[in-house]
Amino acid sequence: MPLTPEQTQEIEAARANPRPTLRAVSEGMEAHLYRAHEVLDHGFVRVVDYMGDDSAIVQAARVSYGAGTKHVSNDEGLIRYLMRHWHSTPFEMCEIKLHVKLPVFVARQWIRHRTANVNEYSARYSILDREFYIPAPEQLAAQSTINNQGRGETLQGEEAARVLEILKSDAGRAYDHYEQMLSQEGQSGLARELARMNLPANIYTQWYWKVDLHNLFHFLRLRADSHAQYEIRVYADAICKVVADWVPAAYAAFEDYRMGGATLSGKALDCVRRMLAGEAVDQENSGMSKGEWREFRALLDEG
Amino acid sequence: MPLTPEQTQEIEAARANPRPTLRAVSEGMEAHLYRAHEVLDHGFVRVVDYMGDDSAIVQAARVSYGAGTKHVSNDEGLIRYLMRHWHSTPFEMCEIKLHVKLPVFVARQWIRHRTANVNEYSARYSILDREFYIPAPEQLAAQSTINNQGRGETLQGEEAARVLEILKSDAGRAYDHYEQMLSQEGQSGLARELARMNLPANIYTQWYWKVDLHNLFHFLRLRADSHAQYEIRVYADAICKVVADWVPAAYAAFEDYRMGGATLSGKALDCVRRMLAGEAVDQENSGMSKGEWREFRALLDEG
Amino acid sequence: MPLTPEQTQEIEAARANPRPTLRAVSEGMEAHLYRAHEVLDHGFVRVVDYMGDDSAIVQAARVSYGAGTKHVSNDEGLIRYLMRHWHSTPFEMCEIKLHVKLPVFVARQWIRHRTANVNEYSARYSILDREFYIPAPEQLAAQSTINNQGRGETLQGEEAARVLEILKSDAGRAYDHYEQMLSQEGQSGLARELARMNLPANIYTQWYWKVDLHNLFHFLRLRADSHAQYEIRVYADAICKVVADWVPAAYAAFEDYRMGGATLSGKALDCVRRMLAGEAVDQENSGMSKGEWREFRALLDEG
Amino acid sequence: MPLTPEQTQEIEAARANPRPTLRAVSEGMEAHLYRAHEVLDHGFVRVVDYMGDDSAIVQAARVSYGAGTKHVSNDEGLIRYLMRHWHSTPFEMCEIKLHVKLPVFVARQWIRHRTANVNEYSARYSILDREFYIPAPEQLAAQSTINNQGRGETLQGEEAARVLEILKSDAGRAYDHYEQMLSQEGQSGLARELARMNLPANIYTQWYWKVDLHNLFHFLRLRADSHAQYEIRVYADAICKVVADWVPAAYAAFEDYRMGGATLSGKALDCVRRMLAGEAVDQENSGMSKGEWREFRALLDEG
Repeated sequence: MPLTPEQTQEIEAARANPRPTLRAVSEGMEAHLYRAHEVLDHGFVRVVDYMGDDSAIVQAARVSYGAGTKHVSNDEGLIRYLMRHWHSTPFEMCEIKLHVKLPVFVARQWIRHRTANVNEYSARYSILDREFYIPAPEQLAAQSTINNQGRGETLQGEEAARVLEILKSDAGRAYDHYEQMLSQEGQSGLARELARMNLPANIYTQWYWKVDLHNLFHFLRLRADSHAQYEIRVYADAICKVVADWVPAAYAAFEDYRMGGATLSGKALDCVRRMLAGEAVDQENSGMSKGEWREFRALLDEG
Repeated sequence: MPLTPEQTQEIEAARANPRPTLRAVSEGMEAHLYRAHEVLDHGFVRVVDYMGDDSAIVQAARVSYGAGTKHVSNDEGLIRYLMRHWHSTPFEMCEIKLHVKLPVFVARQWIRHRTANVNEYSARYSILDREFYIPAPEQLAAQSTINNQGRGETLQGEEAARVLEILKSDAGRAYDHYEQMLSQEGQSGLARELARMNLPANIYTQWYWKVDLHNLFHFLRLRADSHAQYEIRVYADAICKVVADWVPAAYAAFEDYRMGGATLSGKALDCVRRMLAGEAVDQENSGMSKGEWREFRALLDEG
Repeated sequence: MPLTPEQTQEIEAARANPRPTLRAVSEGMEAHLYRAHEVLDHGFVRVVDYMGDDSAIVQAARVSYGAGTKHVSNDEGLIRYLMRHWHSTPFEMCEIKLHVKLPVFVARQWIRHRTANVNEYSARYSILDREFYIPAPEQLAAQSTINNQGRGETLQGEEAARVLEILKSDAGRAYDHYEQMLSQEGQSGLARELARMNLPANIYTQWYWKVDLHNLFHFLRLRADSHAQYEIRVYADAICKVVADWVPAAYAAFEDYRMGGATLSGKALDCVRRMLAGEAVDQENSGMSKGEWREFRALLDEG
Repeated sequence: MPLTPEQTQEIEAARANPRPTLRAVSEGMEAHLYRAHEVLDHGFVRVVDYMGDDSAIVQAARVSYGAGTKHVSNDEGLIRYLMRHWHSTPFEMCEIKLHVKLPVFVARQWIRHRTANVNEYSARYSILDREFYIPAPEQLAAQSTINNQGRGETLQGEEAARVLEILKSDAGRAYDHYEQMLSQEGQSGLARELARMNLPANIYTQWYWKVDLHNLFHFLRLRADSHAQYEIRVYADAICKVVADWVPAAYAAFEDYRMGGATLSGKALDCVRRMLAGEAVDQENSGMSKGEWREFRALLDEG
């Protein structure tokens, strides 16, 4: 259960009191506010605040381009145009603030996206809770034999059982020792900032993470991608659903141009042109390396 | 008159329809929303959107510092503590979006603050309006004789009249020529992106500018300072008034620690200690250069 | 002539004294150091300093990916792989510092790229030189009739002559008045920070601009593009030549994947697949708008 | 021993071949290049590359302020002036690239400074080494009883022994299990990206970290401060020594104005003025809270 009863009560209280505002309101987002979307075994993502909606993107674009935008018939078309031509600043005019609970090793990947604001729970000041990510059996994957950063088949039988047993017992023991070191009963008690070093990377932490829509899309493109590690991808997927309700037109454009799209190199474009002209193109006459050609063929065959 | 009737109507329309939201609401800020605060002869600042309030700062700090913040008795005290100890991330959890109309030479100073999002009216796409900043007579200052970046006495009589005449007539002529070059009557008409190069730096532009509260405070500390150029300082002053209504506790802490405070060097601190111990300290035995000593004495005598 | 004799002498002096260093050295870049590449009528770009080379990119990637990178046979292949998969952090390990002299309206576009460090000549402190960008006759283009941000045919005959005459005489008069307002002969002299407002946007300014290679590539992709305004594109083109000599492998990958490549939407990819399967696809059954379809067809027909 | 023989050999090889360059060279920094400064039990900091020196700061400032800087008699005086008046952009013109080996819990604090470029060793791609930070006995501190984020007395006797035993044995067991889960002997072997979650926060990681001098000073001010956690402070201290050799004038100014200096609030400044005028000021009539007053008195009594 990711939420404590205290947290659930806080969420209900926060949702009980709508107040009038003159700001842009996204109905789709209001339905999400404060509610926790469960992710992994103890994690969650929830929207704490937001700024702007699809119209705010259009409004900012019209300030920039003035009369120049009038020929685009409608907001959705303009948003698609902005996305297609990498006009990123209008998307920066929307902002979202999330409260996320996530394992430390996921947080370490996440924080590499630097253009965001973060307030993380501090283990120097406070004591972490006894909550660890233990993968579901179907997520216990072997190392990929063809991809250094990938997963292969799911572990089976005794091997899977052994791994689960290790993860659970090591986490439990590490936390017991963490508490023992901190304890001030009959001893001084180790400083929190030192005791935390004994805790493994699957312990949960939490933070407030605030980001603009352009940088959020960049994060989602990389982290909702099939090559991202599963444990961060499920967070990105949960955020995608929220964003689709918040700014439906921008999200649809993002899905088509970024998630569903692909960047072709000059060489790849050239091959496409030659193939459409009827030429038989293979790796040898493509000008691409074997790896590039494999990725290129996979892209064309994907549909 | 900075606002067109069309703009005034838009503002009234935007303010006419409060809608319910579950987000944090700052009453002080709702009163400002969309309204234009006039600055200089044709400029304005107006709040288009905001995220968060004083409580949002406290909330983010409590996520970070957990139980560690409970000993601080109240929100105001915690906010002062955060400001005093340069804990900047909780202030980053508030965001503001402004619509600003300002002369180009002011915009060029402003944009040096890079940690913000900007959508500026594009003179490539659109045609700029005939509006120029002409200083009020009391702002027509001579070059300072002691400070390379400062202003001295106000110009008087014929000299002042001549300057005003130059600024007005050059701006008018430049704009007439801008229109003539653009005109497509009986000729092709020069491209907008080229014609704009004839316009002087006192023409007005406008933009949407979005920034978090921490970076806004940094901007205000530098630009509401007495050493800032008057023409940007009046914008900073107008924003200060808005922020004071938006996040009163954070603004009060900012005023005390940043605007009203000062940073002393190690040498200056040492001099203060010696002076408090009764020693007669002058520039020669202070370890400071003449310039530093002059600034130090001015600081101590200021009150 | 963009360079003063004093500047030429400084460049020669700076190039006369090689000193030993243990740092990574790019021979291609050493040949460029300090030398001014002329751009437009009075502008230039010159390299003032740099950090790293192709090997530095590879080295950083191998720190990140450790043994995982050993299967890539060579540095060039690894760099192409990084570029193809948007692994941007290794490219951030190279840095360049440029000294650029450029018209103010170009500087205003340039500065929108915020992830860089800038020191610009200050017209508050100092007096600007009498140098203005006046377009060469073949660059005097009419407003495009089909594209709000584009140029059409070149102006001819009397219209061209009139435009040139306006640009020259307005710039000259504005500068004369600038000097008259500043003058302290027989009068106080207007403050520099005020007098500058009379100067048009084609006056030259200069700055030091420092940026990492990843962000530089982003700048070049947008500004060396055929849709960029000519007056900034010539700067981007000049920088491209420098970068090609500095980090040849990275630049080649950039050229193939970014400059020569294209991003296809999911819809566009789907059309390519259908066309390769022999289906006749036109705008009506493509799922694309007319504008998108036009751009898509142009891309396929380009070669 | 933080360095492997292979690493030592690489360093010697890298230092064996000086090459000529026309760039600014800092002799003090050349002596540091590639050499590892040992930190904690297995960590190090070493300079991999740098850009600029004290003169580069001055040169950038003179571009900005032009003739306006000529009245400052020398480079050192100008650098002190820039530091005193928070003119940060000239300091951004210097850049440093460090290779750092550090415990994960230190890396997590460090990465909160976002304005930097990072390439970290990836535990998705590669296998981490068996190296853990185990505090020296004199660093085994109790939780402070007066400060939530501080350390108190050093642990003694049995309690200290117990803590060390826990940290060592838990780390060893976690690593044994990490290896067992990864092993492909007689089993599939868990994916690296999953197995790493079992490793505690005192395991060592490493990264390349590149930052400009202004942002480095900001990092050092916070992390070389006496309130910073010891385990990150020792890294900051090691970097301070390097920077003092790289840019001696800038570092001296930083030491005086930032490390040795202090920011006084408006209230505190007022108290100083009243005290210098002979008034007896205590907490009650100071306008400050008890906490503020305590910090203020400590500052005045420090010398």
